[in-house]
Amino acid sequence: MEFLVRIQVQLPPEMSAEQRQTLTAAEARRGRELQDAGLLRRIWRVPGRLANVSLYEAPDATAVHEALSSLPLFPWIDAHVEPLAVHPLERTGDS
Amino acid sequence: MEFLVRIQVQLPPEMSAEQRQTLTAAEARRGRELQDAGLLRRIWRVPGRLANVSLYEAPDATAVHEALSSLPLFPWIDAHVEPLAVHPLERTGDS
Amino acid sequence: MEFLVRIQVQLPPEMSAEQRQTLTAAEARRGRELQDAGLLRRIWRVPGRLANVSLYEAPDATAVHEALSSLPLFPWIDAHVEPLAVHPLERTGDS
Amino acid sequence: MEFLVRIQVQLPPEMSAEQRQTLTAAEARRGRELQDAGLLRRIWRVPGRLANVSLYEAPDATAVHEALSSLPLFPWIDAHVEPLAVHPLERTGDS
Amino acid sequence: MEFLVRIQVQLPPEMSAEQRQTLTAAEARRGRELQDAGLLRRIWRVPGRLANVSLYEAPDATAVHEALSSLPLFPWIDAHVEPLAVHPLERTGDS
Amino acid sequence: MEFLVRIQVQLPPEMSAEQRQTLTAAEARRGRELQDAGLLRRIWRVPGRLANVSLYEAPDATAVHEALSSLPLFPWIDAHVEPLAVHPLERTGDS
Amino acid sequence: MEFLVRIQVQLPPEMSAEQRQTLTAAEARRGRELQDAGLLRRIWRVPGRLANVSLYEAPDATAVHEALSSLPLFPWIDAHVEPLAVHPLERTGDS
Amino acid sequence: MEFLVRIQVQLPPEMSAEQRQTLTAAEARRGRELQDAGLLRRIWRVPGRLANVSLYEAPDATAVHEALSSLPLFPWIDAHVEPLAVHPLERTGDS
Amino acid sequence: MEFLVRIQVQLPPEMSAEQRQTLTAAEARRGRELQDAGLLRRIWRVPGRLANVSLYEAPDATAVHEALSSLPLFPWIDAHVEPLAVHPLERTGDS
Amino acid sequence: MEFLVRIQVQLPPEMSAEQRQTLTAAEARRGRELQDAGLLRRIWRVPGRLANVSLYEAPDATAVHEALSSLPLFPWIDAHVEPLAVHPLERTGDS
Repeated sequence: MEFLVRIQVQLPPEMSAEQRQTLTAAEARRGRELQDAGLLRRIWRVPGRLANVSLYEAPDATAVHEALSSLPLFPWIDAHVEPLAVHPLERTGDS
Repeated sequence: MEFLVRIQVQLPPEMSAEQRQTLTAAEARRGRELQDAGLLRRIWRVPGRLANVSLYEAPDATAVHEALSSLPLFPWIDAHVEPLAVHPLERTGDS
Repeated sequence: MEFLVRIQVQLPPEMSAEQRQTLTAAEARRGRELQDAGLLRRIWRVPGRLANVSLYEAPDATAVHEALSSLPLFPWIDAHVEPLAVHPLERTGDS
Repeated sequence: MEFLVRIQVQLPPEMSAEQRQTLTAAEARRGRELQDAGLLRRIWRVPGRLANVSLYEAPDATAVHEALSSLPLFPWIDAHVEPLAVHPLERTGDS
Repeated sequence: MEFLVRIQVQLPPEMSAEQRQTLTAAEARRGRELQDAGLLRRIWRVPGRLANVSLYEAPDATAVHEALSSLPLFPWIDAHVEPLAVHPLERTGDS
Repeated sequence: MEFLVRIQVQLPPEMSAEQRQTLTAAEARRGRELQDAGLLRRIWRVPGRLANVSLYEAPDATAVHEALSSLPLFPWIDAHVEPLAVHPLERTGDS
Repeated sequence: MEFLVRIQVQLPPEMSAEQRQTLTAAEARRGRELQDAGLLRRIWRVPGRLANVSLYEAPDATAVHEALSSLPLFPWIDAHVEPLAVHPLERTGDS
Repeated sequence: MEFLVRIQVQLPPEMSAEQRQTLTAAEARRGRELQDAGLLRRIWRVPGRLANVSLYEAPDATAVHEALSSLPLFPWIDAHVEPLAVHPLERTGDS
Repeated sequence: MEFLVRIQVQLPPEMSAEQRQTLTAAEARRGRELQDAGLLRRIWRVPGRLANVSLYEAPDATAVHEALSSLPLFPWIDAHVEPLAVHPLERTGDS
Repeated sequence: MEFLVRIQVQLPPEMSAEQRQTLTAAEARRGRELQDAGLLRRIWRVPGRLANVSLYEAPDATAVHEALSSLPLFPWIDAHVEPLAVHPLERTGDS
């Protein structure tokens, strides 16, 4: 089953450039692991913001929660998970 | 460039089953044309609603507008188009 | 997987008492079928409104969409489906 | 009478892992007491967030307030309590 | 237990003055019955609108739903019911 | 004239238990003075929150502002004041 | 006491020009009566909309409700009434 | 002075293609007059909707209201007008 | 041209009484200057809040911005400026 | 392609006047570079706020994100980017 995930990151402006870079690098590493595991299928940057929209494929919402809460930036994010159903245009049929 | 499109269809409950079917069939045909043209890349049903989320790839917002306004259901839909930027995880780099 | 579903019914006030009753009876019949099928686990009335909150158990969002769109009142409802993950208090562990 | 409760926890990201763990463990203990007392009937994790949805059974809103304000995380939560009425499908009758 | 109820009436402007008056008179009669039954304790007009705020006392949300859905204007109203807990200032104690 | 007041208190979680208690006790004392002065007619706890709904009777909004801004918790509250008109059911007449 | 009133008029586009003009003229006449009675002190057009913001002076919210519900356009308006307190800059004092 | 105007057109889906075309053509003619008069400086289509964002230059809000209410589609639009101030980057100075 | 301005002041509760008083006194002085300059025509306190609604008369939005950003409390306020057009009832004519 | 960008700056009130000035000067310099590069076509101040509305021209959302995230104030801003399509009135044709 697929899920549309929207994440807004809220890093305090006064966080040091160093801590920011460490966190961001760790986040990217974990992101690539989730890609390799086949959970994170697509990800886009929301322009102008530390925010992204992504597409997860997972057996259920519990697996999505485990993936998201494993992100190093988890304590700083506001996430929203939306369940997606298959659309007829991607199966066979009528709209 | 990619765009995330969210569409809510508002068919009046008193519309005849026949007109509904005609419209839906035409909508599906046009949807497949947009898929074939490479504009409509993914589409999901929002569960419980006559609504969908879709992913368009188009040179600009004008092309997206032309695609959406060519849908037979256009007079009955409420659509929202969101621009997407490339995320580092889909290029090479850091988050 | 469980889903929390919120449904608001919008019947036009001028609908005849007869059509209203026919629809409501059909809706109740279909509701009991979904209960019997193990999809609809709990349902509550939102006080003061033609609205309800319900708990579905289904393999994925596509199955929830099929259940909801099979309701006789589907053309008159506004539904919102929220995915639920397992909470540690219902497994074993920490909060 | 049943109540649907929605809780968002807002722990400051800079809280130490230790304080976080102490609080979370105390929260889980209190949660289990509320389960044992028959107040907290069901609880789900909202995926991607430190948030949950739960079902309380209590004589009135005052009892729900006492349960929620007894949670160790109470100073960090934003809670919303919604009253639920019995739905005909769970009694006998029509929808 | 007490409940705060907010009701917005949406009568179509083209409803005849006669039907409007018949409905309003029936509504007032039913309102007085609910007052006499001790369910409807206070009621205020929201200025500038066909809307009101009221205070119900009832054993539970099911009783409130039965009261509200017995109103002749029920098919034209949008109601919201909020549960109220006892405040320490109305018992004895601290704030 | 009556006013419906909704107050949300936002005490920082890191406030010491002692300061919290001192403030709360002072708030309760001031609340009882407003009750004795006939300004604060009813007050309810919003379950699950440091919030309340209350009913003031005062000659005008200026008097309500003076009452609310005299509360020891005033710097920490978010208040909303709604004017109430007399409803026909509490005078004599039709709805 | 003063009140800030915000009114949005929703005339159906298909209303005949004649009925529209009759209503608008009656509305203007009633508006001038409210001005002459000293209730309606100021009124502004919200640009681009059939909407206005106005300033009423009245003993209480009941009087404001009577004024607004006496408007010929009342069945077509959505009104919001906000209570205003005296500001120190208009009395004597500090901000 | 400049104003940012956001307009949503709500044509009923059942309006005949002919009336729609007549209205749209008249709207375009009036739009070009407002461009020629120097009031309407820029206009963009909001993709996926019968909506637009535009930039007006006018002495004041009254002139903007006159321009917008002269549009043939005025009875079907929902408009919002936002005042714009000069930004230092378009004068000389600092941000 | 007139503008309706809505200002919410957000002083941190932990600000010292002294700094608060100094700021407030400076704010009142600047407010009286804006009154004397004919920019600030009316101002009301929103009851229960450190908030106000005011009426400015200024040649354009740039002048309003200069007035508001000259307030000593400017770094702590959230302001919203709404443009007002002349209403027919304040000129001569129809509504 | 053009984009409408809305930016709200949230500088903490306790930031020193010096840091504020340094940041603002750097922001203005970067703003002028974006103007010179033809990306930032228009910019307006939202009156009463540290906020602006601007018009960008860029090949895609990724380029807009790069421009916005290059602003020295980026860690303190909340930005929203809206895609704009060409409107018929700026091409040739019908509305």
